[in-house]
Amino acid sequence: MAKLQFLLLVLATHLWVSTAAGRPRQIHPLRRLEAAGDHSDHGISCDSWRMAVETNNIRRWKTVPAACEFYLGNYMLGGLYRKDSAFAIDQAVEYAESLKIAGDGKDVWVFDIDETSLSNLPYYSIHGFGSEPYNDTLYSQWVEMEMAFALPETLRLYNRLLSLGIRVVFLTGRKEHQRHHTAMNLIKAGYTSWEKLLLRRPSDGSTTALVFKSGQRKKLEEEGYRIVGNIGDEWSDILGGSAGSRTFKLPDPLYYIS
Amino acid sequence: MAKLQFLLLVLATHLWVSTAAGRPRQIHPLRRLEAAGDHSDHGISCDSWRMAVETNNIRRWKTVPAACEFYLGNYMLGGLYRKDSAFAIDQAVEYAESLKIAGDGKDVWVFDIDETSLSNLPYYSIHGFGSEPYNDTLYSQWVEMEMAFALPETLRLYNRLLSLGIRVVFLTGRKEHQRHHTAMNLIKAGYTSWEKLLLRRPSDGSTTALVFKSGQRKKLEEEGYRIVGNIGDEWSDILGGSAGSRTFKLPDPLYYIS
Repeated sequence: MAKLQFLLLVLATHLWVSTAAGRPRQIHPLRRLEAAGDHSDHGISCDSWRMAVETNNIRRWKTVPAACEFYLGNYMLGGLYRKDSAFAIDQAVEYAESLKIAGDGKDVWVFDIDETSLSNLPYYSIHGFGSEPYNDTLYSQWVEMEMAFALPETLRLYNRLLSLGIRVVFLTGRKEHQRHHTAMNLIKAGYTSWEKLLLRRPSDGSTTALVFKSGQRKKLEEEGYRIVGNIGDEWSDILGGSAGSRTFKLPDPLYYIS
Repeated sequence: MAKLQFLLLVLATHLWVSTAAGRPRQIHPLRRLEAAGDHSDHGISCDSWRMAVETNNIRRWKTVPAACEFYLGNYMLGGLYRKDSAFAIDQAVEYAESLKIAGDGKDVWVFDIDETSLSNLPYYSIHGFGSEPYNDTLYSQWVEMEMAFALPETLRLYNRLLSLGIRVVFLTGRKEHQRHHTAMNLIKAGYTSWEKLLLRRPSDGSTTALVFKSGQRKKLEEEGYRIVGNIGDEWSDILGGSAGSRTFKLPDPLYYIS
């Protein structure tokens, strides 16, 4: 039953993605055509909350404020999330096209996976857009379904990078035992090749994502790679050591990872 | 004549600030009550542009897109800018109150000046809200008038920090020859004391603000100071070395400093 619900949502969301060039279709009761304006109901400005999240001013938050669930549904599905993503990707493509690539296969771009390469919006849209506490069991089931879709803007960057001769490294907080499902999902979504797919192994312990990812990037550099770009939806993807020559922050007001 | 125009604007803006607890008064023809929604006129989403600026995705930009001047007037004067600032400052105050202060006078908080401690909104509101190219002559005249007002939210943080026993260091890209006018303006605006006021000297050369400010913060640490917090409106205020235990980004969609 839950699976059927997922399937319907995934189908609906794919329609939304595939019609994004025109007016996206209505797929969610929360949806409005444009997201924002200011929502100051319930004593919180959800616009200001979202800005504080995106600029790393609020940290270690657990869930979206309940008063902002409706607002975030509008934001994520109403068009502005996609526009914000497109704007960020436009900058990344412009930067990538300005690079001189050595052609020795050592120029790499680091991609985070969740809410960067793959979108879990079908999952979050039935779990309160981040207003429900994280549920590891349910989320793991979702990962194993391999049904996350590509963020269309990120896929555009990915394809452009490959055509420029820049290789892609996926670096994710997903765990090593999820490698197969993750790889299959990436392929299904259109990310068909990569230089490395780096997941968190048991030996990486319970360090923060920032420490884990900095360490992995340092290893890449020690192996002779040049990290020409790095893109993620969390600040922990793009801060820390060996961050890369240039970093890009995709929007994600749904959850926080330190 | 220009001075009279300034005076009127400053007066109006002070009214706006002083009535901020209630409905701010209308002081500018661009003003609307709430700022945003999505403005996709002229082929650019000004919401997405602003988000890209605030998340450091767009860099080295020279002027606000002409199509967004109206949008930014609404944003800056329509209430959302103040709400975004207040939200950031709320986080900073909460963080500051959580600190254990040694009481030896070595715990400092670094404040940028322009668009962080002082607001130059009266200047920018008659110069296209960042859509006109920077004019060093006119801007220097404005600085010498010492009429920038305090960002009320930042002044609230400043006062709270002093009461907690944290000392304040102002670190600015303003030049050493502007020290007197800068100090006078700070005092008039309510920032009546500080541990240090660090300006850019001729010997600092033409390095970027990021390099200059990182160097100055490093010197602070070498002098035994602990930078417990750091707040600015530009990413070059809060990235780089010796950034401080925690950084806060205030909104500023009007200009970019690398």
